[in-house]
Amino acid sequence: MAELSEELKKFIAHVAGLVDGYIYARVHGEPQALYEAALHLIRAGGKRLRPVVVIAVAEALGESAEKALPFAAAVELVHNFTLIHDDIMDRDEMRRGVPTVHKLWGEPMAITAGDLLFSKAFEVLSDAVDKGVPPARVVKAARQLARASSIVAEGQALDMMFEEEEDIGVEDYLKMIYKKTGALFEASAVLGGLASTEDEGLLGSLATYGRSIGIAFQIRDDVLSIIGEEEQLGKPVYNDIREGKKTLPIIYALEKLEEEERERLRSILGRKDASMDELREAAELVKKSGAVEYAEKLAEEYMKRALAALTVLPENRYRKMLEELAIFAVKRTK
Amino acid sequence: MAELSEELKKFIAHVAGLVDGYIYARVHGEPQALYEAALHLIRAGGKRLRPVVVIAVAEALGESAEKALPFAAAVELVHNFTLIHDDIMDRDEMRRGVPTVHKLWGEPMAITAGDLLFSKAFEVLSDAVDKGVPPARVVKAARQLARASSIVAEGQALDMMFEEEEDIGVEDYLKMIYKKTGALFEASAVLGGLASTEDEGLLGSLATYGRSIGIAFQIRDDVLSIIGEEEQLGKPVYNDIREGKKTLPIIYALEKLEEEERERLRSILGRKDASMDELREAAELVKKSGAVEYAEKLAEEYMKRALAALTVLPENRYRKMLEELAIFAVKRTK
Repeated sequence: MAELSEELKKFIAHVAGLVDGYIYARVHGEPQALYEAALHLIRAGGKRLRPVVVIAVAEALGESAEKALPFAAAVELVHNFTLIHDDIMDRDEMRRGVPTVHKLWGEPMAITAGDLLFSKAFEVLSDAVDKGVPPARVVKAARQLARASSIVAEGQALDMMFEEEEDIGVEDYLKMIYKKTGALFEASAVLGGLASTEDEGLLGSLATYGRSIGIAFQIRDDVLSIIGEEEQLGKPVYNDIREGKKTLPIIYALEKLEEEERERLRSILGRKDASMDELREAAELVKKSGAVEYAEKLAEEYMKRALAALTVLPENRYRKMLEELAIFAVKRTK
Repeated sequence: MAELSEELKKFIAHVAGLVDGYIYARVHGEPQALYEAALHLIRAGGKRLRPVVVIAVAEALGESAEKALPFAAAVELVHNFTLIHDDIMDRDEMRRGVPTVHKLWGEPMAITAGDLLFSKAFEVLSDAVDKGVPPARVVKAARQLARASSIVAEGQALDMMFEEEEDIGVEDYLKMIYKKTGALFEASAVLGGLASTEDEGLLGSLATYGRSIGIAFQIRDDVLSIIGEEEQLGKPVYNDIREGKKTLPIIYALEKLEEEERERLRSILGRKDASMDELREAAELVKKSGAVEYAEKLAEEYMKRALAALTVLPENRYRKMLEELAIFAVKRTK
């Protein structure tokens, strides 16, 4: 894997400590089972990349991490809420190396636990006024996070609908992953900016940065589902094939493979009872089509867009880490 | 039924028109299936009582309905989001006289549709700054609505957990219905206040009003599930008995009935396959215990608490309608 610099590793660990501490301090109550279920995936790990974006942007603009912390915790809470609900809908059983929330607590409690994290996100976001962020900017942050959450819901609906549709192209895919993943990274970068400024031009560039790394991350995720290894991913490989997800490598392969191989791939896609051999065969067909190289090239384009957008920030170590993060998005192996 | 005055009826229709118009203007997008699912229950009807509280409070304090409208729409969106998710968890098939969202669109789309309404609530709430509500008060409103939503999630979890527990008392029940129903009425009254003022004392009294009518409404709801008629309710009668819900009349009957009748009642509670005759028999046992009179008396106490809290408002027609609403909460037959 593209190794992260020591500095970025330390910064990620630092942000994770801050954000986790803040979340645990703010998300507790009764009944205990509900709060255990709600915090389960957060405790299990995760990279905290969205909070890293929030806080790195704020610090790049000269603001303290403390001031941006409510925003950082809020986006992480929204992210985890969507994971809990997505796992129910996709019937996924493992995430971050542990059983999913609905596997452990049942679907009704998992639905409610997700709802709780969502409302907690907006409670926590409002704390920013107590940290000295002007109320007008906190309202803008709430609006941005709410809009992003609506877009994520649209993306989730599209993702489900695409499973049933034959005729999904690259454009459809890019729209869907912008909604499902890009919008929350976009909000993260903008919220980091709002901790410091209302400058619309600057916030617009930050939005481009966040959106672009989100899309790059998701393309990489979809590539890893084809080429990755289970132990590194913390979840079963080939999930996307088993569920018939219309990911970029799969869409590309369905377009480019010769008829016989395409039909063979199609016959395996979305079959919940496919054997490991069949899944592996499908993944090999996807690789053979050149889909991995194609997807990697597209991800790189988004990375470049992200890097260009960052030039609005002052040159300092935080901007440097945001640049490194954009590169990591497309090079990572887990 | 306790007939509503012509004036209150007109006001409710007026508020419903405003709020529905606002919601339809703000909640639309792609994919269409998601938005259809999200708006399904709102289109099917409902009393819009929470928006009525928001707007009546704001107008009682001399503020325009227009200014309070984003807050009113936001609480109605949160309410409808909770209905969609509750129906999934309770496996209810009918609501407001129409099939529930998950019956028509399936569970995954229903979960996502609920999530969408939740995020739209915070988008819409933020519109209040555009209507001239000072940002500091909009942040307070967001925080209040987010807290209320967290409490609703706690209440939903308790409600589910109570179904499995034998030993639920009146205190447990009251705590649960405060969370499940009282908290959102509380937020409605406070949000109406925040459209006009930050006076903590006044907002505290409004909170008491809202919380009290919410609890009174829920007690009445639980009574109607025992004594009501299906046609009026728009959903099957005796649902609570079939699902083994620990409602006030049922808790009271389990405490007061002689052993033989108590065991008979217990043997029917929570049996999804109970016949209509058995359900009717269980309801008769509940009535025989004196539970209906007991619950009605308790609801009346909350009504009185609500009326006392209203005296902080100027005496005008809006305060009068809020008083009437408190009385309606305990007298209504549907």
